[in-house]
Amino acid sequence: MSPERPSREDLVAAFRLTRDRSVADCASLEPEDYALQAAVFASPPKWHLAHTSWFFETFLLKPFLADYQAIDDRYEVLFNSYYNGVGEQHPREQRGLLSRPSLSEVLAYRRHVDEAMLGLLEESHDEAEVIHQRTVLGIEHERQHQELMYTDIKYSLAANPLLPAFDAEGWGRAATPARKQLWDAFEGGLVEQGFAGTGFCFDNELPRHPVFLQPFELADRLVTNEEYQAFVDDGGYERPELWLADGWAFLQENDCRAPLHWLERDGEALEFTLAGVQQREDARPVCHVSGYEADAFARWSNARLPTEGEWEFAVKQLGECAQGRDTQTGLHPVASRAADDRQYFGACWQWTQSAYSPYPGFRPAAGAIGEYNGKFMSNQWVLRGGSCVTWSSQARPTYRNFFYPQDRWQFSGIRLAR
Amino acid sequence: MSPERPSREDLVAAFRLTRDRSVADCASLEPEDYALQAAVFASPPKWHLAHTSWFFETFLLKPFLADYQAIDDRYEVLFNSYYNGVGEQHPREQRGLLSRPSLSEVLAYRRHVDEAMLGLLEESHDEAEVIHQRTVLGIEHERQHQELMYTDIKYSLAANPLLPAFDAEGWGRAATPARKQLWDAFEGGLVEQGFAGTGFCFDNELPRHPVFLQPFELADRLVTNEEYQAFVDDGGYERPELWLADGWAFLQENDCRAPLHWLERDGEALEFTLAGVQQREDARPVCHVSGYEADAFARWSNARLPTEGEWEFAVKQLGECAQGRDTQTGLHPVASRAADDRQYFGACWQWTQSAYSPYPGFRPAAGAIGEYNGKFMSNQWVLRGGSCVTWSSQARPTYRNFFYPQDRWQFSGIRLAR
Amino acid sequence: MSPERPSREDLVAAFRLTRDRSVADCASLEPEDYALQAAVFASPPKWHLAHTSWFFETFLLKPFLADYQAIDDRYEVLFNSYYNGVGEQHPREQRGLLSRPSLSEVLAYRRHVDEAMLGLLEESHDEAEVIHQRTVLGIEHERQHQELMYTDIKYSLAANPLLPAFDAEGWGRAATPARKQLWDAFEGGLVEQGFAGTGFCFDNELPRHPVFLQPFELADRLVTNEEYQAFVDDGGYERPELWLADGWAFLQENDCRAPLHWLERDGEALEFTLAGVQQREDARPVCHVSGYEADAFARWSNARLPTEGEWEFAVKQLGECAQGRDTQTGLHPVASRAADDRQYFGACWQWTQSAYSPYPGFRPAAGAIGEYNGKFMSNQWVLRGGSCVTWSSQARPTYRNFFYPQDRWQFSGIRLAR
Amino acid sequence: MSPERPSREDLVAAFRLTRDRSVADCASLEPEDYALQAAVFASPPKWHLAHTSWFFETFLLKPFLADYQAIDDRYEVLFNSYYNGVGEQHPREQRGLLSRPSLSEVLAYRRHVDEAMLGLLEESHDEAEVIHQRTVLGIEHERQHQELMYTDIKYSLAANPLLPAFDAEGWGRAATPARKQLWDAFEGGLVEQGFAGTGFCFDNELPRHPVFLQPFELADRLVTNEEYQAFVDDGGYERPELWLADGWAFLQENDCRAPLHWLERDGEALEFTLAGVQQREDARPVCHVSGYEADAFARWSNARLPTEGEWEFAVKQLGECAQGRDTQTGLHPVASRAADDRQYFGACWQWTQSAYSPYPGFRPAAGAIGEYNGKFMSNQWVLRGGSCVTWSSQARPTYRNFFYPQDRWQFSGIRLAR
Repeated sequence: MSPERPSREDLVAAFRLTRDRSVADCASLEPEDYALQAAVFASPPKWHLAHTSWFFETFLLKPFLADYQAIDDRYEVLFNSYYNGVGEQHPREQRGLLSRPSLSEVLAYRRHVDEAMLGLLEESHDEAEVIHQRTVLGIEHERQHQELMYTDIKYSLAANPLLPAFDAEGWGRAATPARKQLWDAFEGGLVEQGFAGTGFCFDNELPRHPVFLQPFELADRLVTNEEYQAFVDDGGYERPELWLADGWAFLQENDCRAPLHWLERDGEALEFTLAGVQQREDARPVCHVSGYEADAFARWSNARLPTEGEWEFAVKQLGECAQGRDTQTGLHPVASRAADDRQYFGACWQWTQSAYSPYPGFRPAAGAIGEYNGKFMSNQWVLRGGSCVTWSSQARPTYRNFFYPQDRWQFSGIRLAR
Repeated sequence: MSPERPSREDLVAAFRLTRDRSVADCASLEPEDYALQAAVFASPPKWHLAHTSWFFETFLLKPFLADYQAIDDRYEVLFNSYYNGVGEQHPREQRGLLSRPSLSEVLAYRRHVDEAMLGLLEESHDEAEVIHQRTVLGIEHERQHQELMYTDIKYSLAANPLLPAFDAEGWGRAATPARKQLWDAFEGGLVEQGFAGTGFCFDNELPRHPVFLQPFELADRLVTNEEYQAFVDDGGYERPELWLADGWAFLQENDCRAPLHWLERDGEALEFTLAGVQQREDARPVCHVSGYEADAFARWSNARLPTEGEWEFAVKQLGECAQGRDTQTGLHPVASRAADDRQYFGACWQWTQSAYSPYPGFRPAAGAIGEYNGKFMSNQWVLRGGSCVTWSSQARPTYRNFFYPQDRWQFSGIRLAR
Repeated sequence: MSPERPSREDLVAAFRLTRDRSVADCASLEPEDYALQAAVFASPPKWHLAHTSWFFETFLLKPFLADYQAIDDRYEVLFNSYYNGVGEQHPREQRGLLSRPSLSEVLAYRRHVDEAMLGLLEESHDEAEVIHQRTVLGIEHERQHQELMYTDIKYSLAANPLLPAFDAEGWGRAATPARKQLWDAFEGGLVEQGFAGTGFCFDNELPRHPVFLQPFELADRLVTNEEYQAFVDDGGYERPELWLADGWAFLQENDCRAPLHWLERDGEALEFTLAGVQQREDARPVCHVSGYEADAFARWSNARLPTEGEWEFAVKQLGECAQGRDTQTGLHPVASRAADDRQYFGACWQWTQSAYSPYPGFRPAAGAIGEYNGKFMSNQWVLRGGSCVTWSSQARPTYRNFFYPQDRWQFSGIRLAR
Repeated sequence: MSPERPSREDLVAAFRLTRDRSVADCASLEPEDYALQAAVFASPPKWHLAHTSWFFETFLLKPFLADYQAIDDRYEVLFNSYYNGVGEQHPREQRGLLSRPSLSEVLAYRRHVDEAMLGLLEESHDEAEVIHQRTVLGIEHERQHQELMYTDIKYSLAANPLLPAFDAEGWGRAATPARKQLWDAFEGGLVEQGFAGTGFCFDNELPRHPVFLQPFELADRLVTNEEYQAFVDDGGYERPELWLADGWAFLQENDCRAPLHWLERDGEALEFTLAGVQQREDARPVCHVSGYEADAFARWSNARLPTEGEWEFAVKQLGECAQGRDTQTGLHPVASRAADDRQYFGACWQWTQSAYSPYPGFRPAAGAIGEYNGKFMSNQWVLRGGSCVTWSSQARPTYRNFFYPQDRWQFSGIRLAR
């Protein structure tokens, strides 16, 4: 969706890298894990592997590759996530029931799509511009699903009383004492919000437009486990005055009393991680909190959540650099190590107080591909930044992630504002 | 919440007028109707009569009137709507099971509170300022419940296959042909949003703050039944590309195919109204649509919903005057009669695309009374204006009404923007 | 359904008595109580008043009274309980939403039906035999609904935190010390089960047929509150080995820890009764227990529930006489006063271990009226006897009452067998 | 539970045969299939493999084998089906979420248990009698689970739109024209019901006791697909008068319009089988009907379902011989081939009209093992006979199978009585 077109070689390389990575990311799984779905929102790894292939097949191979032969026509419905414009979808809550196609059949499907895609990218084509743009989108799409694969499998493994590790090797760093949190101050004023430039962005980051910001301050690191524990200990989950009404109702209905994946055994503070059950270290950022929890914690702290405009402005002012899975070790957020380690990227997504709405003048892409972002613009909140399982290439100052305020299975944390 | 303090005489007069009106509004009901609750959101008339008294008792009589004796201590829980700071609440979905206290007991409760309130307002008091402010708030609160009484009983009577009229006399005006809809254009720019002045406003209308508006246009009347019928006839409810994802899911789960209270019998287009079943007249504004329906209609029309900032700016620019139940005849929106009848007030609440969020620097009132507005600032959408059952005294340019986007039982309609 | 035909005068007298009694039974209610329904199974008093009239209208007036004019054609659907052969039914769970027709309209409906019925019974008619039989059935039907009116309103009033009394005068007798429970022994053998004789019975009591009973013993009175409390105190509700699997699951899902209507306040053992909250007296029979609770109590007692064959045989052997609401004082079961007060009738219905099944050769009546009993012959258990709110005319040795094993809102108690 | 004790060699041989068969039965599955659970009642194959091992471990190895070391203590909870006396259970509806332990770990668990069991059976032991009895029970238990494995995986594969075959080779026989159904007549009288003899039986088949049977007739074969289709074509699913009330409600709530696993494509009558989608052959027995469907079909046929007493008496009179999976070809019921092929065993389980209740004098075994049968004696119906996936060793005249009347995923069919 940007004018700049990467070279064919770069595009092919990015395609290969991303496609291979999806398979490699799952290498530690047992066969049964590939079909595991413990909640409607947590798709099985095998489904992610198939759906990302479906995306290339549906939006590139079928429209643009002459004589393309699908490996199985029924996959069109089976691996459609939510594109009504393409047709019917297999019910989302039943993805875990797809023991077939088997893993080897899905891997064959991937190879089939990869070969066809590489053929398509090689050939000359009247629609080369659209093909390139959509291939970039497909790559970015697959990287998003790589992140979801981590958070989904984490959620689904957590439903097993055996609490198996995704990758027992993935727990690297030693604990760091938390450093004191300070505040960065910003003047605001009439500023520009939204993407500008020549690289890739999603449609929801456009159009760039002016917004007026009053002066504000943002915390210079994320909230830690220790700070969040103090909120819990102070009766945070028992005091309705700290909570939005819908959040309070959610707590009561779901009996939430701590972040998702927090555990306690014999008085010991633990955390379920992708590396299995681990000590819950004070200095690491609290993660897997809902928007409601983030909001209540902020209120308890006599602070508030930032708006997405404030967050974006601050990142640009500070010149923060993207970090992510490919620049970190381990599959869990680490503590901020120094004053210049502000954790805008590479640790946790950060809840904002902004509802996910269209920018003034927003136009989704034409056709089914326009369902990518726009139709979700109600009832969700914007998160900004990126987590330890986001690729750094995706961690952009203008990227708008969005989830329902009750969602907790992403690596979502808290940055305070005031 | 404003500095201006009405005179004691004016306050007492407003208090009496409002309190008497609540009882008078219900005069046409059968005894069993007073306890009727057909959905969790639709409280029984008797409950409204009691809860509005509870509000004065809780926030004025108990804290400020020495030696005040409650008529029944159990009412504190029974008629608490949602104030956790006051204590427990009788479950909202069971309000219809309160056959007791009987209507006569509730009327006695009202008289008891009225007498005590009049006593409190007569006496000198150190806290006179707070007492006056809260009495004003209690009066505004009761006027809001009068509106809810109309929409709640309409909903609950509609659940009866006999479709009884609330007030068969309430159907006055003859049909008017719809006039052509035109557009009013506005420049926007950096403008002020929120309440300013010396009269009453709710805390959520503050603080006044700058926002930047790009140029926009608003329709000069509301969408009519005829226009909405064209949307239905064009397959509006069968085309997912017109809908937000949550709205589409809501349609499927609830099998919505038309606005609430639309009926069809033997091919005749009808509408259930407070005056019973009536012809569905083309020129009247469509009402009882959800935010999702409003949004889908706007998309179908190649338009969009206004933001609340746009709406407020337009009203101020146009110098629109409040109208309401007390300036209209009938209990149903009427057609726009002329070019200067823009229907900002007095017909239907108008869905905006704005999520209900705090204004920058928003601070709720201290204590339980601070639960009035602030805690609902998630998942709801702002509606602006006022309806045929809103008092004109409440129809303010800065008033922020809010409901969930799926809610349809209010007199909610559509004004297009582009 | 028996050949014996009462005289016209007796029939008319029974009709008048029964019809008048339905209205008189409700005399202590507030208007709003008439429409009260706190659970799907607990119909509002007004609905009972209307439905019993509907029964006469549907099965007698419409087929047999020439020129009968219904007062409102919509009542045919509105007050049909479950007769698919008659047509559609207003949803059972929405009976409490029928604020209209108002009480006075329902009373007018009753008078309209009464007059027409008296006219029908006066005239000569070719179908006089069927008319007489169905009138008897209608009378018995209305007496069943009188009992339901008591148990339904008791349930519905109990949902109100004010715990209002149905009739505060209805609490008469002083407590009696419980007498020791003894066992009556029976030989059994090949015996006859089912109705024989010339009076009225329901179709499900036929045909009379032989069953083989092994020797057994039955308790000579019902289980008392004191005995049941010992079961509770012994952890009865926490010991799965005492419970049927479905019963145990029901306990967990519904958090049952005591019979319905048991209360405890400040350590005091209380009971909600039709006379409001009262002391829970040791010697009174425990009532409002489910079949599961009865079964678990019996297992805990090293006993079991009787089969319906055993129960019927015992009553016939003992020559027990019917008692009921018309021979008792008060609206709550009283303690057994003496060794010959075996409480087969007039206190509580008694759960048997027998599933409600057709007798060999059972044939329901033809047409919609055949839906009266037969279609309920799955998943329910038979109760025998009669309660303090059953008319003595209905307390027959062969009467088969039936409810789901989880049902607790009837006056259901426990007689042990071994 | 019988006095006769098989020789040690025979017991060991039966143990080995049965244990090996469980694994062999699953040989055609994909790894992901082993964890598949499409409904709460349909356990995954891997779970069956583990639970049957758990049974031997819990009731034999832990109590009787000195120094037995469990392979993983957490399996005690994980693979406990419903034995409260043993302790907590992993929630039944989450068995499909157990991607771990992996299949290879479960197979290792089986080998561990097998070795220990063979050791236990080899050694001399004071409790040899109990050990032998329980080993027999464990073997019978495992054979029951083998049958469930077939019906569960059939149900779960049917939830996949690809409709994969369990074993594409398993569809053998050609269609046979249906032979005319005749009636076998029986005198009845006072007869004995329940198990007698020296072999194995379950506790619920005891004690043998007299029952009185009136003269009756039973169909000499099962109802066919063709006959059932006639019921469907005659509006059987739209006529409430044919149905028990609970059955009718079940139809409406679940939108049932045909037996489970019936399919129709382009007007062709098909059936999902363990061999994949196949033609629905007229002469084969209808299977996968609920008790409600069986009962409604019988009513439509002017017949009824047999009682379990009638069925058992008939089998004994006719001298029917057990058949089952090991004597059949294919994994689907075949048509009755001749007049003496009465299909009491080896085709479908046959719904009776008898509620599953204790026999007079029934006593479950002491301890947790007593939960095997007795606690399910409410709300279920008895089925008699055996199906094409029952071992012939289990097909006993006195065997009482039991399911809820709405259950359809077993090979359950219909034998008429009158």
